Order: sequence, then C-alpha cells, then structure tokens
Amino acid sequence: MRDVTVLTETDLRACVPLNLAAIDVVEAAFRALATGEVVMPPILSMDLPMVNGEVDVKTAWIPGFDGFAIKVSPGFFDNPKQGIPSLNGLMILFDAKTGLVDALLLDNGYLTDVRTAAAGAVAARHLAPETVETAGVVGTGVQARLQLEAAYLVRPFRKVLVWGRNADKADACARDIGRALGVETTVAASAETVVRESDLVVTSTPSREPLIQAEWLHPGLHITAMGSDQDGKNEIDPTAIAAADLYVADRLSQCAVSGEWQAVLAKGLDGGRTPPELGVVIAGAEAGRRRPDDITIVDLTGTGAQDTAIATHALACARSAGAGSVIQT
Amino acid sequence: MRDVTVLTETDLRACVPLNLAAIDVVEAAFRALATGEVVMPPILSMDLPMVNGEVDVKTAWIPGFDGFAIKVSPGFFDNPKQGIPSLNGLMILFDAKTGLVDALLLDNGYLTDVRTAAAGAVAARHLAPETVETAGVVGTGVQARLQLEAAYLVRPFRKVLVWGRNADKADACARDIGRALGVETTVAASAETVVRESDLVVTSTPSREPLIQAEWLHPGLHITAMGSDQDGKNEIDPTAIAAADLYVADRLSQCAVSGEWQAVLAKGLDGGRTPPELGVVIAGAEAGRRRPDDITIVDLTGTGAQDTAIATHALACARSAGAGSVIQT
Repeated sequence: MRDVTVLTETDLRACVPLNLAAIDVVEAAFRALATGEVVMPPILSMDLPMVNGEVDVKTAWIPGFDGFAIKVSPGFFDNPKQGIPSLNGLMILFDAKTGLVDALLLDNGYLTDVRTAAAGAVAARHLAPETVETAGVVGTGVQARLQLEAAYLVRPFRKVLVWGRNADKADACARDIGRALGVETTVAASAETVVRESDLVVTSTPSREPLIQAEWLHPGLHITAMGSDQDGKNEIDPTAIAAADLYVADRLSQCAVSGEWQAVLAKGLDGGRTPPELGVVIAGAEAGRRRPDDITIVDLTGTGAQDTAIATHALACARSAGAGSVIQT
Repeated sequence: MRDVTVLTETDLRACVPLNLAAIDVVEAAFRALATGEVVMPPILSMDLPMVNGEVDVKTAWIPGFDGFAIKVSPGFFDNPKQGIPSLNGLMILFDAKTGLVDALLLDNGYLTDVRTAAAGAVAARHLAPETVETAGVVGTGVQARLQLEAAYLVRPFRKVLVWGRNADKADACARDIGRALGVETTVAASAETVVRESDLVVTSTPSREPLIQAEWLHPGLHITAMGSDQDGKNEIDPTAIAAADLYVADRLSQCAVSGEWQAVLAKGLDGGRTPPELGVVIAGAEAGRRRPDDITIVDLTGTGAQDTAIATHALACARSAGAGSVIQT
C-alpha cells in the first residue's frame, strides 16, 4: 500500500500562495534547465475542433527535484456558455526515482497561474533595472494581476499603469492591482503610454499582431512578454526585439514556434544569433542586464520545468500545512 | 463544486474484469478509429536514463464516448531492487465535451493489461478461424495469461500450448492458464511446436529477434503479435508477414515505428502495400479472414483509443457497483 495525496483547488489556493518561496523554486527549475541533465520532451498537443477544445500535456524531469509533474491542461472554449471556465486541468506528481504517484493536484489551472507569474518575477529579478519606479501591464486578465503581484515581490515599484482594449476590464484590473499592492494604479490612455512611462512592462495578451512598437522603447526598459504561447501569437514588434540590448527566451526551441521569437525568425531579424535562455542567465553563464540603460526583453512561453517545480513545492507546502486527503493505493 | 471519482487498483480489479463487455468496448474504439473523427496524437515519450526509467503518455478522443483518457505509464526498471514493480501509472478520465476531470483511475497498469488483452480478443474475433482447437502462446508474462483468457471468450479452444525461454516460468504460466480456463495446457518443446500445432498463436515477448519463422506457418493459422511496442522490437520473421494472406495493424503509423511492420519495411518486404488497420476490418470496409485456410497476422502496438475505451468503461462499471471514493473539487 502506498499513500497518494490528493489536493483540490481550494487546498492549493490556501497553502500555495504566490510568494518568494514559489518564485525561488521556479528559479531553481530554470537554473537546472541550463545546467543539469533536465529531460523536457516537446509538448503533447491535441486539437479537438469538434468540441472547440484543445488539450496540452507538459512534463519535465529535473535533477535535484524529488518529483516530476505531468500537467494536463484542457481548454474547452464553449464551456462559458454553460457557466464553466474554459481552462481547467490538473497535475500529477510522480516520485523522480521510482515513477510512483505521489500526489494528484486537482488545481483547475491555479498552479499554472502561480508558476507563470513566478517566472515573470524570476525574469524581473535577473533582467529588470535595480530600481523600478513604475510598472506597466498590457492586458487585463488573471496574469495581468498576478504578474504585477509577483514582480512587486522582487522590484517593489511605486506606481502601476494598466492598459487593455476593453476599458471596463482595464478599470477592474487596475482596481484589483491597486488593492492587492497598495500602490497608485491608473489606467493609461494607450499601450504606448504604458511602455513610455514604465521601467518594467509585462505583456499578457493573446494578441496575434504586435501591440508594442519599437519606437516606444527607451533606455532602462525591461519587458516580460508572456502572452505568446502558440503558433501565430505575437505581442512585440520583432524589430523591437532585434533592437533590444538583450533578448532572453525561457526555452528557445519553444519561443521559436510559440513565442515572440517566431516573428523575429519570420522577418529574418535574428541576425544568425542564438539568444540565451533564462536559465543560462540565472546560472551566470551569460550576462543579463549589463548597464542601467540596457533595454531587455524576456519571452516566456511556459515550460514543463516550471510545472515540476511548482508541483513539488505544492506537495511540500501541503504536507507542512497538513492539507488535503490521502488515498491508499 | 464537481465530483471527481477516485478508483484504486483494488477497486478496479474488483469491478472491471476481463470479460466480453471489456472486449466489446475496445472493439467499439477500434471501429471508431476507422470510421469516426478520432483524434489520437503521437505518444509523448520521456526517456530517463539517469534513473533507468521511461514515461509514456497516450491519449485519444473518440466520437461517441463520454470521456477521453490520458494515460501515464512510467517504467522504472530499478524498482524491483526495492521490491516495487517496474511498471505503474494511472489514467485520468476527462469529460469529452468540457475537458473537466471525471475520474482518477489509480490502476498501476491494471487497465492497460485488460485493454491490451481485450484487443487480442477483438483481433481473434475478426481474424482467427471460426473454430480454434488449440491456442498457443509464446511468452510467459502477465499478457501471455490474459491474452489466452481473452481469446477464450471469443474462440473457446480445447487445448493450450505454452513456450518461453525460461522453463520454470513456462511451467508456472501453463499452470495458471490451465487453472483459469480449465483446459488442457502443456508446455511445448519449442516455439516451433507451438506455431505448428496451434490454430491461434499469441506472441507476447520483448524480443528483438524474430522468434517465429516463416516456414512454421500453416494454413488456417492466426497470429496475434502483441509484444513489439518499441523501436527495434521484433517477434515475427518479416518474410512470414510478407507471405501471410493478411497482415493487419492496430495503427499502421505506430506499427511502422514500434511494431512488426518496422522489420517488414526495413527489409523492403512491404511490396508497396498499405495494410489495413484493425478498425477498418471491424467496420467491414476491408475483408478480414476470407477463407478457413488463410494465414492471418495482426500486429498490436497499443493505442490511446483503447485507453479511452477502457477508462470510460471502468467509470461506468464503478458507478454501477458504487465503487471508489468521491472528491469534491
């Protein structure tokens, strides 16, 4: 007989907050991606046009972690008609040395939200200017909120600018961020204002046309582009990426097919470069920001390594808290 | 709140026997593979040489089924040193229209055993001679036993011949089959004897060299080759497959890379043919066995469609039996 811990979304929301511990464990996973013998197969993707759905499966085995996660992310886009969220899913945590199931994390995507925001904070920690006065966000969804909450933990800014195409959603997002962080938060008139007036910008939209133009970039700017995660998505003008002092990919092979690097390659603006990955910068094998005036851009498509990191962390948190239930199998 | 049913291996062994209902649901999945808009992505495979392990993830969405399964099969081959089985794993059953989790099937591979044996019975039902006097098996593992139990449900034979390289294991396997089916079961002197003296033969070994030679084939023979499921595996001499009246693949794209068809292609013995798939034969779109004297060979590599079929069936069985526990999420 063996114990399998089962944690629901309620359990996980209670015991796995978006905090520095979550950021640190995701940073450790990125460092391992660069330095260790990580095994991270390509994403298994299943399109289900007949039910307007899709399913992605991600995984990674990371040396030094007790477990590895397999994450299943279904997206069924007719669900809202029935009052059900489109995005759901769960993670399964396996023992790294025996492959036995340790935990079932029925998080409905909550842990993905946390690990995605945590990656933004890791990027900000290593690439944003030392001092951030104003942080901006283009996009008004869950990640717009969580990315700024996470960034605030590593770069405590004084002011927030929010822009989104839908003014009501931008208002609501600004109100939520202002309340969560207790900093002055305003809706900006345009994406251009956000970029021109911020030191750190997060883009978190599903855009397929660049929202950020190259001429808006200014010395000392850091951008975390986390919206693009599929073929055809694009938030940043590829000439902006070509012009930046440093572009960093979370995983270059993924960014080339589902991140901002796609558009750079499509326009032939890569200049034959192989940009560094975030883990390599974290490990110190390649420089991050060199000068206060550098313009840096990081491209986050989401990696199975983050899933393994957050799932391992979640089980540890739940065990300390005595949360969840146990099934004997 | 939503109910998720959790079923352990003990629950599943009690309420999902290898019976005609299991065979029928697997047959329906194969039929759908041929006729419907099934979505079955390539297997996600992760090799973990540093821990002598591997993990496979299979899935398929099948029209007409209420759910789809994602199956995770870890194989960690140092586990027996600690007294733990090498093969484990679980299936997750999702609602086919919303992607919400319906059930967690912590089966440790039991449902895979059932659906694999059921596929052998489906093949026998459509390809074996109407009357089978003697059934033979080459191999002495769990599938050697279950394949004959399943075949017996569709072709009730009178005699069983068993052969394996290890005489003690062959003895134990013959004893188990004889006890389970109540038919005369003997250990044969060679694989050749098994093939020459049987009407239906199952091969269930991990062999990488042909165990079955072409000159042993005789009129009215049906072979189910179910051992090959990886690059480099091979149980049947490819000239035997070329010489058979009919060769049928469970999924040709899989058989070409992990089944018996690999060796046929490698030797250039395919003659430019595109062999039929089992589902097409079940659906009647291509003929199965035409004459009593035909020699037929079916190549089973294992499909995600079978996993979806057995997982859906298992949840239905468990609900009728009131088995398992429920987690609210």
